[in-house]
Amino acid sequence: MGHKLLLLTKVNQQYHDLIEALELPNLVLLNDDPKHLIEADIWLAEPKLAAPLLPHAKNLKWLQSSFAGIDALMSPRGRKDYLLTNIKGIFGPLMSEYVFGYLLAHIRSHDFYRLQQRQKHWQVESPPYSSLQNMRLLLLGTGSIAQYLAKTAQHFGMHVTGINSSGNTVDSFDAIETMPTLGEALTKADVVVNLLPSTPATRNILNADMLATLKPDAILFNVGRGDALDLDALNNQLIANPSQQAILDVFTQEPLLNSHPIWERENTIITPHMSALSQPEQIVTQFSQNYHRYLAGKPLANVIDFNKGY
Amino acid sequence: MGHKLLLLTKVNQQYHDLIEALELPNLVLLNDDPKHLIEADIWLAEPKLAAPLLPHAKNLKWLQSSFAGIDALMSPRGRKDYLLTNIKGIFGPLMSEYVFGYLLAHIRSHDFYRLQQRQKHWQVESPPYSSLQNMRLLLLGTGSIAQYLAKTAQHFGMHVTGINSSGNTVDSFDAIETMPTLGEALTKADVVVNLLPSTPATRNILNADMLATLKPDAILFNVGRGDALDLDALNNQLIANPSQQAILDVFTQEPLLNSHPIWERENTIITPHMSALSQPEQIVTQFSQNYHRYLAGKPLANVIDFNKGY
Repeated sequence: MGHKLLLLTKVNQQYHDLIEALELPNLVLLNDDPKHLIEADIWLAEPKLAAPLLPHAKNLKWLQSSFAGIDALMSPRGRKDYLLTNIKGIFGPLMSEYVFGYLLAHIRSHDFYRLQQRQKHWQVESPPYSSLQNMRLLLLGTGSIAQYLAKTAQHFGMHVTGINSSGNTVDSFDAIETMPTLGEALTKADVVVNLLPSTPATRNILNADMLATLKPDAILFNVGRGDALDLDALNNQLIANPSQQAILDVFTQEPLLNSHPIWERENTIITPHMSALSQPEQIVTQFSQNYHRYLAGKPLANVIDFNKGY
Repeated sequence: MGHKLLLLTKVNQQYHDLIEALELPNLVLLNDDPKHLIEADIWLAEPKLAAPLLPHAKNLKWLQSSFAGIDALMSPRGRKDYLLTNIKGIFGPLMSEYVFGYLLAHIRSHDFYRLQQRQKHWQVESPPYSSLQNMRLLLLGTGSIAQYLAKTAQHFGMHVTGINSSGNTVDSFDAIETMPTLGEALTKADVVVNLLPSTPATRNILNADMLATLKPDAILFNVGRGDALDLDALNNQLIANPSQQAILDVFTQEPLLNSHPIWERENTIITPHMSALSQPEQIVTQFSQNYHRYLAGKPLANVIDFNKGY
């Protein structure tokens, strides 16, 4: 019996062409006719697009998310009667480019030298830059993306601490802490990168009290989930501490509301959730590998545990 | 018999304090009284400061440069009757921060997103970024700094070609080319980084003809020596090819003349020779190690060959 695949992404045609070219056995690609929501047993979908349509998916057996973040499918009363897999392993390099691009731009004073160039002025900043070497990086999360960032950081000579729920050691980290010691860990970090998934335990974890423990010149990235961070508290904190710097790619409400004052902070960089974009070629490769496992009745890669939420 | 050390740097007091703290045996630190130029047998000096004073250095046996670049001491009629050592191995990490900071800022569209933030506009650039993965990097030079950059580039998934005079293979490079194939190598490179020392063979090597072989969206760094590059030719090239990008830290004449039109190119970044600044703590460590070798009559590290010029 054949399988029927529904595509639910913002670039369906691109996914269609890539998958068709693979000539996967026993697989029919459905177009986006509403009746196909019912027919399809497999979905390749963006979680936010899939969530409102799930009640109609009578034949759904397996949903392959095209994103890493699947919290849109974790509503407590949502369906849990299907296999959910996400994408892992391809976002580390992209996230590393984002984080280290903005980190190096900050510590190596790109803004200072840009302004000097406009003035045709030739002078080394005083005091000159300090390097990433020996700076302390704290990663909230120790999954595959965090592990990639940790490797990049170690290449640049940084000391890397990771925080996870188990406290278990992970390769590429110099030290591992657990959530209850977050406040203490924040006081020691020069650079903090939040990579945590959205779960009840991580929501609002970077609240006003936690943010107040940051160093006077700390650099804070949020590239995990927007709801881990109290954005209004951060805005106040950044006004009070002009030497701190925030680089934010994810927000509780996206797009970020036009009226939010953090748009205007000089010491904040805001980007539209693009730090590690899904690239269809790579997504389709992972889907295809999982599809062959599915056909063979083998366990799929990157299955989500609905109880844990990741 | 004791040795006498003359300091000739822009931050003499800092060097004085660092060296004094080491309590090196049989070493007297001289102050900058002109008569000490004659007395000192060892100089720790910036090449440009040392060059005009060398004729007075009657007792000079060994000059430890505080820089990597020693071309100011390579004048054909200059003295060659002393041991000249330079600094190696500490500039790779700093140079890597500079090159990858500006490279990531360019390919990940920092300028685009900065402008969007000012407009409180939330939109992913279209088409979105390509990543460093699989981009082709060409390094002119394969010495210790180039090797460090090659390692960083490989971490980011780039393909790395090096150019040197021997064509001998070097660790961390995917391929090695020689100077006669420079033009061909330039046509294939997405990113070109010049790290060559200043020698008769490298002067003006990036001339108008060579620059014309660059890809339409090539990114060119000069962090080696200013005189390797024809700056006027590059300026014309960048006007004709607005998708090319240059990042320039070194110039034949420094400071770069206020009147030079390249200051105003939108697709050029100009910094005041700060890509890898000598940090006195690290310089003093290398000096101290060499001083102990000197006392013991052992060969010094990083001795310059006056015939080769590096």
